[in-house]
Amino acid sequence: MRSHKMSVLLGCVLLCSASILYLGLSGIDCPHSSPVRRQTWAEGSKNQSQASPGYYGEETPLIFIGGFPRSGTTLMRAMLDAHKAVRCGEETRVIPRLLAMRATWSRSARERVRLDEAGVTDHVLDSAVRAFLLEVIVGHGEPADRLCNKDPFALKSLSYLSRIFPRAKFVLMLRDGRATVHSMISRKVTISGFDLTNYRDSLTKWSRAVEGMYSQCLAAPNASCLPVRYEQLVLRPEEEMRKLLIFLGLQWDPAVLHHEELIGKAGGVSLSKVERSTDQVMNPVNTDALSKWVGNIPAGALHEMDDIAPMLARLGYDPRANPPNYARPGPLQTPNNYTLHQRTAETPHPS
Amino acid sequence: MRSHKMSVLLGCVLLCSASILYLGLSGIDCPHSSPVRRQTWAEGSKNQSQASPGYYGEETPLIFIGGFPRSGTTLMRAMLDAHKAVRCGEETRVIPRLLAMRATWSRSARERVRLDEAGVTDHVLDSAVRAFLLEVIVGHGEPADRLCNKDPFALKSLSYLSRIFPRAKFVLMLRDGRATVHSMISRKVTISGFDLTNYRDSLTKWSRAVEGMYSQCLAAPNASCLPVRYEQLVLRPEEEMRKLLIFLGLQWDPAVLHHEELIGKAGGVSLSKVERSTDQVMNPVNTDALSKWVGNIPAGALHEMDDIAPMLARLGYDPRANPPNYARPGPLQTPNNYTLHQRTAETPHPS
Repeated sequence: MRSHKMSVLLGCVLLCSASILYLGLSGIDCPHSSPVRRQTWAEGSKNQSQASPGYYGEETPLIFIGGFPRSGTTLMRAMLDAHKAVRCGEETRVIPRLLAMRATWSRSARERVRLDEAGVTDHVLDSAVRAFLLEVIVGHGEPADRLCNKDPFALKSLSYLSRIFPRAKFVLMLRDGRATVHSMISRKVTISGFDLTNYRDSLTKWSRAVEGMYSQCLAAPNASCLPVRYEQLVLRPEEEMRKLLIFLGLQWDPAVLHHEELIGKAGGVSLSKVERSTDQVMNPVNTDALSKWVGNIPAGALHEMDDIAPMLARLGYDPRANPPNYARPGPLQTPNNYTLHQRTAETPHPS
Repeated sequence: MRSHKMSVLLGCVLLCSASILYLGLSGIDCPHSSPVRRQTWAEGSKNQSQASPGYYGEETPLIFIGGFPRSGTTLMRAMLDAHKAVRCGEETRVIPRLLAMRATWSRSARERVRLDEAGVTDHVLDSAVRAFLLEVIVGHGEPADRLCNKDPFALKSLSYLSRIFPRAKFVLMLRDGRATVHSMISRKVTISGFDLTNYRDSLTKWSRAVEGMYSQCLAAPNASCLPVRYEQLVLRPEEEMRKLLIFLGLQWDPAVLHHEELIGKAGGVSLSKVERSTDQVMNPVNTDALSKWVGNIPAGALHEMDDIAPMLARLGYDPRANPPNYARPGPLQTPNNYTLHQRTAETPHPS
């Protein structure tokens, strides 16, 4: 009897020690990659999942949605916002600007020497950019198990983002460039460097910008980038979203097919009054925008489409069909039929 | 006997619960000013002082040294680097760029609305800028009890820095603008927006830039900014440094008068091979540079100096004396004889 009680006592002491040890260890997190340790306690988290809300750092499995503007990035983030475990929120606007500034510091060899001599190494800069991004992504919306960011041109720095957030996943929205450029021009969406009166020039630049993002997507380590075609998303939303949620490691949630029902609700879809695509994602997923461009592109440009926008064919859009049959898309070109040169040519942050 | 053992058991369980509760609570740090908590473990800290190395955040009592380039900012930071409790280090170059970008976001009312609508409030941006700055300041050099940053033009954002680091202290280096501009032109130090062939234009712009920093220095809350005249620093180094260390809340350390002996030593003065003033601070404090400008400024500009550079007189430099008697400086104009309009006119971040 006595030894039985002693066993209980011993068991209790062991349990106690183990608990203290566990809690003690979980509180100690020596800095490896960054001298400044970050931690957050997400109060009122939307839901539990495999992520660990409460700690934000290099290992946070962020989701980055991007692509060329007017390619369904807002629709995608609204559908993901409807998922009970995810919060994307509005475009932060400042994240792509910081990433662009960071890219300029890497581009000049002279500047890199100056920064290195000042102790401002790539490692220090990466920690600083990571800290900035986390503060903005965490701070500008509700807490959630999986935080997500949607700033279309942030994916120009996809390779860099995958370096500073090695567990991040990337969703690259693709769309027929003729539709994208028509949407941009007809809705007067100004994009730095684009001439809103010129289809030919805009399609050329669309092709170049998309090539840069797509090549980084294909080269992303651990298959961490999924290209999603806007047309497939609106034609087969459930199929595409099931594929996407598996890619993101998230459980199926039928709410993603009805994002419009969760607009403005806690844990749902938060929209900015002044962001351009807000009025469109107020509606359920629909196919209205697929072929609006047909008949609006000058004939001269239409005939040379293959030369003007070589990315159309690579992304499976027939450059000579006006419009192509979006229900039967061509194949997305993958590393197998895409040269290494093309894939890495525009990576802005060579490591 | 049985109840005695039960009491021991109960006691153990209570102890266990209390320990778990304590450890649990000590790990929970609800976000007040920032959703992302920062903490650093300063290994091998230079020395102990009133600051608490190990935690870096809004309350960190940073020291910011700045002013117009070629005004003794490098000398000042080298002298402070020689203090056993302080580390400034090289110019980070990236900090003034981030601060300038942050200022542009505040300047446009339209941009502010867009950011606010996206949840990217001033509060979120301030947390992000603070996190970025801390990562760079902490990461680019040795740990120390008092961390310091010297990027001359960072003090264009002095008011803003005092908002995001309310316990920070600021050291504004001032120098006779004629000497500053002569140094800039004769040493070909390019500064964005300055014409290195034109004394008149450069002195006008010097005056404007210094006015912006000086007015923010005078308006800094809790007398947290000390203007230091370069000429007084080299003519009376001990007197000036004693005053400065009292202002910074640091003990007197005679090492600050012999910074050149600590160059390249651990805990001493780290210099960049490619920073412009490195060759000059290799030497002990000296007065060689005081009057080099005399005879090098075009006569036309000299005669209109009062109009070209009104800040000369406000900072106690006789605009008609070539050179003035630096050993007997005129008074620095203070808020009492400096209008409120002038003091706040160039504050880039109105709160």
